[in-house]
Amino acid sequence: MKSFTFCPICATRLNQVFVDGRDRMSCPACGWIHYVNPLPVALAFTVNRNGELLLIRRAHEPAFNEWALPGGFLEAGEHPEEGCLRELYEETALEGSVEGLIGVYHRESEMYGSLMVVAYRVIAAHEEISINHEVFEAGFYAPGLQPQVRIPLHQQIIEESRWEDREQRGG
Amino acid sequence: MKSFTFCPICATRLNQVFVDGRDRMSCPACGWIHYVNPLPVALAFTVNRNGELLLIRRAHEPAFNEWALPGGFLEAGEHPEEGCLRELYEETALEGSVEGLIGVYHRESEMYGSLMVVAYRVIAAHEEISINHEVFEAGFYAPGLQPQVRIPLHQQIIEESRWEDREQRGG
Repeated sequence: MKSFTFCPICATRLNQVFVDGRDRMSCPACGWIHYVNPLPVALAFTVNRNGELLLIRRAHEPAFNEWALPGGFLEAGEHPEEGCLRELYEETALEGSVEGLIGVYHRESEMYGSLMVVAYRVIAAHEEISINHEVFEAGFYAPGLQPQVRIPLHQQIIEESRWEDREQRGG
Repeated sequence: MKSFTFCPICATRLNQVFVDGRDRMSCPACGWIHYVNPLPVALAFTVNRNGELLLIRRAHEPAFNEWALPGGFLEAGEHPEEGCLRELYEETALEGSVEGLIGVYHRESEMYGSLMVVAYRVIAAHEEISINHEVFEAGFYAPGLQPQVRIPLHQQIIEESRWEDREQRGG
């Protein structure tokens, strides 16, 4: 997270001012104010027709080499569901449909600052996976047989989805 | 929405480059890239102990003078629930607790660009309202007796909350 030093509108050096209840960087020439908001992220809790969960092993920072849910930053113009399915497709070439919202979360990332995370339950339309450069491997796993997910927020979402409970009840 | 012309890190004039699947403004000197993401907004669908809905008449743009749900932009470091309750308190001096998530939405604003909106159901802890400069008036309204809400997303959230249905069923 690099902090802003110059005005992106007119290149004047920014000053710190107290605006709307907080210290913010502001331009003394044109009045531009740097409001800092959480970055929106969508995660895809994706299952196949057998209820197996899709996990990816990350090939980039943060959480390099960790098992995770697929997902990423929303782009301007995207509905969060749309961004969620785009990220799923980019990382794994899987198409799917959003079945429901699991929850909305906040976390602080050393690399990106404040994140607002939306997690959706997704049903994969097929099982042919083709990974991109962001991923070392990806697969569908039955409950109890999945690799260990150690990213706290992803662990929490898997718990809140009640995926393991559901399978035990169903199985 | 002013577009970025200069690098906020080093003040160099930005170029347009194709990065991560999109044209983005980027700094030829230091490599900074302007990723544009939806701005996160939280709205508070707030009811009192009698199930009456809190509506405010907005005293600022956009939707100047329109009846609306209270809410606003999340700040870096805030959980969306926390930002939701902060905005409610700032606009009306009402304290409350989040009862549940209604939904996550996207809309395009002429003034602010792409918005990612999270709506929570909130129970007000009391009914003493004190409005701030952003609001002309605010009050709790029984279903069928509320002023007309004409902001499409706020209308949609009120519909999805099933507030009017619930009250009719409850009698």
